[in-house]
Order: sequence, then structure tokens, then C-alpha cells
Amino acid sequence: MTTVFDYTQEQAERFRQELHELLRIPSVSTDPDYAPEVRRAADWLAAHMRNIGLDAEVIATEGHPLVYAEWLNAGEDVPTVLVYGHYDVQPAQKEDGWDSEPFEPVEHDGQIWARGATDDKGQFFTHVKAVEALLKTEGKLPVNVKFLIEGEEESGGAAVSAFVKSHPEKLTADACVISDGGMSRDDQPIITSSVRGISQMELRVSGPKQDIHSGMYGGTVHNPLLALAQIIAQLHNPDGSIAVPGFYDDMLPLSEYERVEIAKNPMTEAEWRAETGAPQPWGEPDYSLQERIGARPTLEITGMAGGYYQAGYKTIVPQNAYAKIICRLVANQQPHDIYEKIRDYVGQITPPTVKSEVIDAAGALAAQMDITGPAMQAAVRAYEKGWGYTPIFQREGGTLPIVADLQSTLNMPVVLMGFGLNSDNLHGPNEHYRIDLFHRGIDTAINFLRECTTL
Amino acid sequence: MTTVFDYTQEQAERFRQELHELLRIPSVSTDPDYAPEVRRAADWLAAHMRNIGLDAEVIATEGHPLVYAEWLNAGEDVPTVLVYGHYDVQPAQKEDGWDSEPFEPVEHDGQIWARGATDDKGQFFTHVKAVEALLKTEGKLPVNVKFLIEGEEESGGAAVSAFVKSHPEKLTADACVISDGGMSRDDQPIITSSVRGISQMELRVSGPKQDIHSGMYGGTVHNPLLALAQIIAQLHNPDGSIAVPGFYDDMLPLSEYERVEIAKNPMTEAEWRAETGAPQPWGEPDYSLQERIGARPTLEITGMAGGYYQAGYKTIVPQNAYAKIICRLVANQQPHDIYEKIRDYVGQITPPTVKSEVIDAAGALAAQMDITGPAMQAAVRAYEKGWGYTPIFQREGGTLPIVADLQSTLNMPVVLMGFGLNSDNLHGPNEHYRIDLFHRGIDTAINFLRECTTL
Repeated sequence: MTTVFDYTQEQAERFRQELHELLRIPSVSTDPDYAPEVRRAADWLAAHMRNIGLDAEVIATEGHPLVYAEWLNAGEDVPTVLVYGHYDVQPAQKEDGWDSEPFEPVEHDGQIWARGATDDKGQFFTHVKAVEALLKTEGKLPVNVKFLIEGEEESGGAAVSAFVKSHPEKLTADACVISDGGMSRDDQPIITSSVRGISQMELRVSGPKQDIHSGMYGGTVHNPLLALAQIIAQLHNPDGSIAVPGFYDDMLPLSEYERVEIAKNPMTEAEWRAETGAPQPWGEPDYSLQERIGARPTLEITGMAGGYYQAGYKTIVPQNAYAKIICRLVANQQPHDIYEKIRDYVGQITPPTVKSEVIDAAGALAAQMDITGPAMQAAVRAYEKGWGYTPIFQREGGTLPIVADLQSTLNMPVVLMGFGLNSDNLHGPNEHYRIDLFHRGIDTAINFLRECTTL
Repeated sequence: MTTVFDYTQEQAERFRQELHELLRIPSVSTDPDYAPEVRRAADWLAAHMRNIGLDAEVIATEGHPLVYAEWLNAGEDVPTVLVYGHYDVQPAQKEDGWDSEPFEPVEHDGQIWARGATDDKGQFFTHVKAVEALLKTEGKLPVNVKFLIEGEEESGGAAVSAFVKSHPEKLTADACVISDGGMSRDDQPIITSSVRGISQMELRVSGPKQDIHSGMYGGTVHNPLLALAQIIAQLHNPDGSIAVPGFYDDMLPLSEYERVEIAKNPMTEAEWRAETGAPQPWGEPDYSLQERIGARPTLEITGMAGGYYQAGYKTIVPQNAYAKIICRLVANQQPHDIYEKIRDYVGQITPPTVKSEVIDAAGALAAQMDITGPAMQAAVRAYEKGWGYTPIFQREGGTLPIVADLQSTLNMPVVLMGFGLNSDNLHGPNEHYRIDLFHRGIDTAINFLRECTTL
């Protein structure tokens, strides 16, 4: 008699080969050129889920497609668990500093190396394999299970957000589980107690009617690149806090109780140095590193461009200069309100010698979770049995727009239980996922479904 | 009996077709990918000059080749004139905002539209056609003539500078004439009395060891794009003057006499608006627009890049941020000294939370000319006869590195007599050259050679 855990061990190699197949599809959602690849990933995934015994479909949207699958044969009086994940990935090119092709997964040093290995193909796939293992060995699942795997988490997630609002009945469940995060050390699993929201925008500064000769007009024209730098330099105060009026107004205050909880699992400066490689910490001096990441909002310049930047020099005053700005928000801050505050402030500080505009892009709400509910406690027990360690609760710096949507629209507890490591280089070159943690994730996911019978 | 001016009229159409041939060769010197095209332009030009009766050769250098040609049959007691020009051009791509392909010259609205039409292929070619017209109609030239046409004026001019220093005897002449500039109005020709120098460098700011997730680390890492903006914002004072310590130290003071001369041909704010299209003038309030352009040094950001700037957003704190800086210098400022002052100042203002470096690139000295000498006066008469208007002397904002080299190494007066208009969009999209001014330039060049018999 093969137990479910015998099965996950016996099939380990095949599970990874299947993951490699999915990793080979460059499903980059942020760049429209890759739309056919995103679609190919959705088709692959739906076919795979049908193969293991689920009813699966690819749902077209105004953006990239959703993959929905379900197994509802546990009975009406048995709880239902919704698994959310995303099959799209961040952009990646070998020239960005990868040691191997980002969409040609390789295994060495105990890791799978590929874009999406940990964020999020490798992680959501643990739940797919958990369901397969239970169905193959026990013929059924302990609870009803739904999967909602989206294709534009890395580019705003508008489609899934709309779908949640328009199809609440289809997604009804007693809890949602998401594995799309990491921990600092493999012996200290993390359950996320909050995620940050996001407000994305583009700042454009323009000056002369076209690129003009820096010798003929330089000294009389306010260079848009200079003006952009001068505007950006006024977005923060010297101490690293954000200078935009009203930016912090709507935040819920960080309670002393929470600060004590956060301090139980600090990010040390040594860890910070090892993970970032930056010369010295920066940011609001009144908050610890862990608080700055999870409990404070930020304003980052994520891209900047203008003028001539190829080989050599071009003696111009450029017509335009651009910056992309991404703010991370905490609970109660509204993405569009933050955009408006930045837009108004930039308007005020733009000198009359140039023109500026700030263009709003997709945003997402922050979310805070109730860590005392039964779904959260089921996750605690699942980690203890499947992972081997008791998890702690922690505020997360990243953004999962779906969390606020599920919590507010479907009134469903959302359990964020990551199976990766913070050092996996998600979003950077050489993204990787530890092979043993992929397999431990599958076992933890099996335990989670078993613990959910009591929801 | 065909006179030289009959000939230039009869051959006008063919002269332009020949210019088009040269304009079709994308001799972009700043981008190494275009080196074969630069070479092709040199070969075309040398062959063309041989065809009209000159001894011509292509001279290999460590960079792009030089084209040298001569006609020395006027006799030893007759003066010699050296014509300098450049056959290389600034980069150009249709996407930059051109209405037609930059390397497919077209004629409409009385203009030739192409990269290099005015800077400098169209302008130096007037002297080539002047020599042809004289040789074909009179069988000889009134003076000995040498041509030195270089191929890297737009990328630092290192090769011609070295050649001038290593082959002074080959280039010996009584005056050098350069047509590589413009005037505001066609009825007010300009002889340049000074050109600005240049100091080029790249500023690099780095932070984390690679691009990192803005959610996981944002708020604790000093974003290199933010730090770059903060550094750049400190390079100027609020009034537009340059904040780098010592930047202005070595400049010769601008005399009251010169300020009066400059004020005789002011750039009005209306002209400035029409030419630049920028919202409002900017720069040092104590100096007029014309003074800021010709008599004051500048510090321009000509390119900036970092992070993700394609379609969509990438949620990163980037590893690096870059800016290209080009300073325009006035007489007595040294390019390397200016680089060192900027490098030291950037080092001082770089916070310990990021690293910065400033990398020196090619520079060039400024030059001031004696406007009372016989070569200058020959140019005045040539304009009066060939162009139809008396020229004025004016300081020029642009840079011609060759001027300082010729003046200091060969001890030769350099006459900068432009045949273009400031509104020709040199260095920008839709560069063009007025057809009638191309032909007037040829007639003025003929008159200049005739007036040079008295040097």
C-alpha cells in the first residue's frame, strides 16, 4: 500500500521534470510581446490539471487568461479550500546577469535555476502535486479544492480582480491558501499577517520641442533630465522619509504590541547585508529594518530614462525624461489617492522652465489578516507536520493584490504560507528554488488540506 | 566663355545629387557598429576629390580615417589655405522623430532633409565644389589649397588631433577655414570669434549587488536611481549656476567691451522660444541668453538610464544607475581639470549608502580667435561679395576641438565661417539644409579663396 508520502518521494524526479516544462515557457506578463507565451503557459497548466483528475478550464479575460480547476467530490458539508497562484513571471534576459538562460531550467547545487522557479511557478505547483498525490493514493481529497491560477500577477492583476468581483459564487470557499513568498531561514517558516499595497505611476518631464544641440542652446534651456533629477530629489526628506504632503495620513498607526511582535523576528544588519549586498542600510531611522520593509510605505524609482545612452556621447539637451515610480502601501492607504498626492506635489515643485505630468497605472490595496482564525491555525499545524518547524507570523513587504480582493469581496480568510527563501533572487537574475524545499512544500500542502477538514 | 559663377549655376543640380550620395552613407562615428560606413564615406570622398583634380588620400588612424587632399600648383609665393571639415555625423534613427529616413536625403520646401545635411557634409562640400568650379573654368586656383576632412568630430576627434601634432609640415598653411556652423538669419552671416571646449564623463551609482525586489527590500536600500537624482540635483545651484567647487576658477573674465559686442546681436527671447520650443528660459540670471550660450560654461546631463524602462513595470530596486554628463567649457578651462573637480565633488556628496564613480571620456579645449587678422578680413569681404551681407563676429556655443589644435600647434589663424542656419536641427531629428544657402555657400567659398591671395 503506497501512502501519499511514499508517492511524493517516488515521483519526486517526475514532479520536477513537469515543473521544468512549465518554467521553459517565458510567460512574461508585463511585456505585450510575450502574450502568446503567457497563453501557452495557461494551456499547458489546464491540460496538466485535467491529467491529474481535476475539471480545469482556461478562462479568457480582457488581459491574460485565468486557469480555473476544481475537485468538489468531498461533499457539501466538507469545507472547500481555494488555492491561488500565478503562472506569469517577471521579465528576464541572460544579459541581465544570469549564469544560464532564464527560461532553460537547470539543476545544480541543490537548486532549480530559472525565472519563475520560486515566484511563483515552483511554489503554486506544490499544491497541484499535493492534490495529485492524494488523488492517486487515496482516490479522493480530504476537502473540496478549487484552483485559481492567474496570468498577470506581475503586471497588476486587473483580470483576476475583475473575475473575483464578477464570479464570487464560483470561487466561494472556506479559506484561500497562497504560496508565493519566502522565509529567511528554512527552519523558520513564515505565515504572512499583512501584505503591502502598490501604487504605480510614470513621471514625465519635457522641455524643448525636440532634442536640441547642447552647444547651441545649453545654458539657456532647463535640461529635462536635470529637472527630473531635481524633482525626484524632492520626493524624500534627508532622513529617508517621504516628502509628499499627506503621504502617511491614512495609515493605521503601528501599535507598540505589533512592534514587539515584529521585533521577535528581526532582520539583522548582517542578514540585510548578505541578502542585498548594498553598502549601508538606508531609510527611516525611527523604524527597524523589518518595520521599514513590512510596516512602512515606500516610494521607489524603479526605472529612469532619457537622452542618449548607447555607446559614446550625443551632445544634446533631450526633449524628454522619464521615471517609473512604484509606491508600496500599508493597510488603509488608497493607491489612487497616493497617486493624486504625488501628482499634485510634483505639479507644485515643477519649475515653470519645464513641463511635467504624472500618469497613473494599476494599483492594489494592502491587506491585513486575522492571525487567530481556524485557517491560520490549520496552516500552523501543516507546517509543524510537513515542514518540521513551527511558523511565526510576519508582515510582508511585497504586494499580492488578490489578497485584498479575496478578503473584501469573498469574505474569506487568506493564508499566505510561503515555501521559498528570501534569498531565491525572485525578480532578479539567477532566480532559483531549493529542490528539497519544493518537495517539503508538497508535503506541507498535503498536510494543509488534511488540517482544513475542521474549518 | 563660362565664368566660375555661370558654372556653379549650371551644375547646381548635379552638385546636390553628389551631396545626396554622401548623405546616404550613415557615417555615425560615435557608435562602433557604424565603423564600416564611416570608412565608406572616407573612400567616397577621396575618390570624389581625385575626380575633380586634387591629389587625395585616405589616411588610416587609430580611430576613423582622415581624408587629405591638396592642390599646390599656385606657386610657392602664393598663400595656402587649409579647409577643415568632417564627414562623420551624429546618430539618427527614424524613430527619434524624423519625418523621413535620416539617411535617405529628400528635397522639399526648399530644403535638403538628411542627417549631416548641414553638419557638416553639406557645409564642407561647398568648398569642394568651389575648388571644382575654379579648376574647371579657370584651370587653376588663386591660392594653394589643402583639405583635411576628418571622421570623428562627433566623437571626440582624437585622430585628427594626433595627426595635427604629428604632421604639422603636411598641414602648413596661412589660414584655415571651417564651415561648420550657422547663423540665426540668412541676412546676417556670422564669423565665429570663439568656440567652447568640452569635458565628457559618465556618472555611475551602484547599490545592491543585483536588482532586488522592491517589496522585499524597498525602504531599507538606498535606491541607486534616487541617489543618482539626489547627486545630480546638487550639481547646480538654484539659480542655474554650477555648484561644483572651483568650476569657474580658471575662466578668463568676460570684459565689458565683449559684453557690449555680444549685446549687438542678441538672441531675443522670442527667437529662443521659436528655436527651442521650451516653456521658459533657464540659466544664470546675470548673463544674457547669448552670453550663456557662447561665453559661459555649462554642465548638461545628456543621457540617464537605470532600472526597467520597457512597457509595464518591474518591481525592483535596481543595482545601478547611470548618467552621461557633458560640460561646455570656455577659454582657459581644462577638460581634465573640470572632470577632476566634478569627480571629487561627486565623491564628497555621495552618501555612504551607495557607491559612485565618475569616468572620464574625451575632452577638447575651447579657443578664442583674433578677429583683426587678414584671414578674418578676407572672410568679411568674401561674405559681402558671395553672400551679399556684411558678417558680424560672435562667440559660438558649440565645440570644434580642431580649432584649439590648429591655433596652438600650427600657429594658424582659423576662420569659422558658417553657411547654415541655427534652425537646421543639427544633432536633432529632421536635420535639414536650405538649398539656396548651399549654393550661396559655394559662391562665398569661391570668393574666400580669391580674397586669400593677399594673406
